[in-house]
Amino acid sequence: MFSRVLIANRGEIAVRIIRACRGLGLSTVAAYSTADADSLHVALADEAVCVGPAAPRQSYLDIPNVIGAALRTGADAVHPGYGFLSEDPYFAEICAQNGITFIGPPPEVMESAGDKAIARRLMGEAGLPLLPGTTEPVASLDAALEVADRVGYPVVLKAVAGGGGRGISMAASRAELRETYARTRSGAQAVFGDSRVYLERYLPVARHIEFQVLGDAHGRIVHLGERDCSVQRRHQKLVEEGPSPALDDDLRAEMGEAALRGAKALGYRGAGTVEFLLDDDGRYWFMEMNARIQVEHPVTEMITGVDLVTEQIRIAAGEPLTLDQADVRLTGHAIEVRVNAEDPDRGFAPTPGTLAEFRAPGGPGVRIDSHCVPGAAIPPYYDSMIAKLIVWDQDRPACLRRLRTALDELRVEGPGLRTTVPFHRRVLEHPVFRAGETHTDFVDRHLRG
Amino acid sequence: MFSRVLIANRGEIAVRIIRACRGLGLSTVAAYSTADADSLHVALADEAVCVGPAAPRQSYLDIPNVIGAALRTGADAVHPGYGFLSEDPYFAEICAQNGITFIGPPPEVMESAGDKAIARRLMGEAGLPLLPGTTEPVASLDAALEVADRVGYPVVLKAVAGGGGRGISMAASRAELRETYARTRSGAQAVFGDSRVYLERYLPVARHIEFQVLGDAHGRIVHLGERDCSVQRRHQKLVEEGPSPALDDDLRAEMGEAALRGAKALGYRGAGTVEFLLDDDGRYWFMEMNARIQVEHPVTEMITGVDLVTEQIRIAAGEPLTLDQADVRLTGHAIEVRVNAEDPDRGFAPTPGTLAEFRAPGGPGVRIDSHCVPGAAIPPYYDSMIAKLIVWDQDRPACLRRLRTALDELRVEGPGLRTTVPFHRRVLEHPVFRAGETHTDFVDRHLRG
Repeated sequence: MFSRVLIANRGEIAVRIIRACRGLGLSTVAAYSTADADSLHVALADEAVCVGPAAPRQSYLDIPNVIGAALRTGADAVHPGYGFLSEDPYFAEICAQNGITFIGPPPEVMESAGDKAIARRLMGEAGLPLLPGTTEPVASLDAALEVADRVGYPVVLKAVAGGGGRGISMAASRAELRETYARTRSGAQAVFGDSRVYLERYLPVARHIEFQVLGDAHGRIVHLGERDCSVQRRHQKLVEEGPSPALDDDLRAEMGEAALRGAKALGYRGAGTVEFLLDDDGRYWFMEMNARIQVEHPVTEMITGVDLVTEQIRIAAGEPLTLDQADVRLTGHAIEVRVNAEDPDRGFAPTPGTLAEFRAPGGPGVRIDSHCVPGAAIPPYYDSMIAKLIVWDQDRPACLRRLRTALDELRVEGPGLRTTVPFHRRVLEHPVFRAGETHTDFVDRHLRG
Repeated sequence: MFSRVLIANRGEIAVRIIRACRGLGLSTVAAYSTADADSLHVALADEAVCVGPAAPRQSYLDIPNVIGAALRTGADAVHPGYGFLSEDPYFAEICAQNGITFIGPPPEVMESAGDKAIARRLMGEAGLPLLPGTTEPVASLDAALEVADRVGYPVVLKAVAGGGGRGISMAASRAELRETYARTRSGAQAVFGDSRVYLERYLPVARHIEFQVLGDAHGRIVHLGERDCSVQRRHQKLVEEGPSPALDDDLRAEMGEAALRGAKALGYRGAGTVEFLLDDDGRYWFMEMNARIQVEHPVTEMITGVDLVTEQIRIAAGEPLTLDQADVRLTGHAIEVRVNAEDPDRGFAPTPGTLAEFRAPGGPGVRIDSHCVPGAAIPPYYDSMIAKLIVWDQDRPACLRRLRTALDELRVEGPGLRTTVPFHRRVLEHPVFRAGETHTDFVDRHLRG
């Protein structure tokens, strides 16, 4: 096992990783930007090193600075959290070159999972259902139009280097595809430094279902059930729950098997997520594989009792999984809502500032993951998350009631601050959500304006 | 089901009950004293009624005031929490006379459980092992001396109307028994208005093991495993955990069966606890039955997933238990520590005042039950509890590590405030506790001075 872990991240996930390290008896180093000097993860870590100014490119994304901080503090492992450097195989390689363990999959696995076209091809070869589309990046607009004619509109163009809902454009017709093709490529070039795109049939009414997997370095791999993340706006998740109201045991077993097959095809190691689209007839298609811990991982922790971040660290240290597939039991129901400093009435525009008051709910089945304390700053440079509120209860109806109580107890106030809490109340009261019948179009269709 | 529940209590348990009521869709009325006007339970309840000044006898214990508040607000049920009126059969009767459901056992059951001598006799008749002693109150000092000679010293004198560790005196010899007899009686008269005492053999080295039971009005009764509450000072619990490190499945099944037999003998209904002493040879003896929800109930909630307060309310409303004994599964390990405003270095003397800072830990497996918010007052009139911190993990060693992390994160500060947190750290680091080998003499023997 390692002795000292540098956390190359901020916010709630940095706090979460510190908690896991403490549980394992590992000391921690917070690598922080000047904007986060007063943040909770800096206070909680055993040591803290400033890695640069507020702008992510000069701090959290600055590989030499982060590696330098690890070497200076004697860290023998780096946990990248999610976002920032977490899916950068180059960073993982540099870690290895410096004798530091990157807590995540091996670089070549990150590469295959990160190149969405390669992942799609490998998954197809492993027998996972794919939406009709290309197995290679499309070479030209004409090629794209030809494929689209074959698979039928609407279609979706996806950046090969994208993922997590970024770098995606829909086209409902030839005209729209013509219009969006060049823009999507140049956008992908600007954001990811890679203009390649691939094309798939688009499913307007589908659920986002993802399976959590854990694989060790000794060939054992298990899945921990699914999360339903269909409540999204612009492909960003807002509410996640597990188990999915749409899956029965048979479909769960079948999709779980598919997720394992796919993860094995990639030689997966660590904590990862295999994402699917699921239609109302129980048909499902591979979407992408996320080679990192995810924001919504607590949903799975609440229904399985497995500490995913701890497992992730153990796996990176070479320890074997102590968990068999038969040991994984899903108990009760969990829902996570993301409490963001965003104004739902103004297109979820961020409202950075200061959190004058922050009072978390408590009691049975209530979990808060947050880096915020009263008086905390919400800097404009990063994501606008204040807290994740996760509730568990014995079944979905009880869980919905508990979530409402917890939202009523939660107090987040600050000058000019708007949050997603009123939005979550609206989701919670909506009959479609209450019935467990949300698809990825739910927010646009039911909660607009 | 009821429509409106009056909460005849304060502090964390009042908040806990409000959360359960919300989950059931019931509106709540907080009955509060002037000292608690700014307390969280008053803010969280749908309605709040002042029932008198700070002194408990004039507010939380004033039956006419409490009943009046219930009638005035149209409450059709009263939840008494723990302490205060929770074990007063007379209060339960007055509730019934006013058409208000008392959320607890029927008055006659409370009477049998509350009279420790009657409870002892009934349990003996039901076949539960009893420590050698009297089955009736002792009639005189001479009678006490005679019994003591027979059962052997040390002995313990217990007030018939006592319970929960109050009204207890030890005597190691005839001389001590002579000295303590009259004092114990007059103390019991002063505190409980009942001078009767009974006598038992005293076990200096034993564990406090209690079984949680739930019984409905339709004759179904289940137990939810045990809590080990051996870490006490002056018979007051400080740390509680479940499962007990001292029980294996066989002993658990046997003691659980005994608890059920005892509860059935009393015609028990509601949530209750059967307390035992257990020695190192696996022998156990009935101690007392607590006819209320207990402070440490979250330990059981964490390892069973059952919401005990919700079940308590459902049972009082006449609903059948939906739980079979076979449905009760103990998963993982939970520990609760009581964070009190007390100075462990000065005999746990209360340190009332103001909580300038209060920051709860969070993340996986961490639960906080508290009525405190930053700036909250800790009035001198009531118990000095600030919060209950409960942690869960897959096994006891992991749970101990998580507890340490959570204690490190917890911030409770205020002018002149001392808390039990440093004490809990010492418990947690102690090899005897770490080995799971604590007996009720642990604090006196290992953590004094």
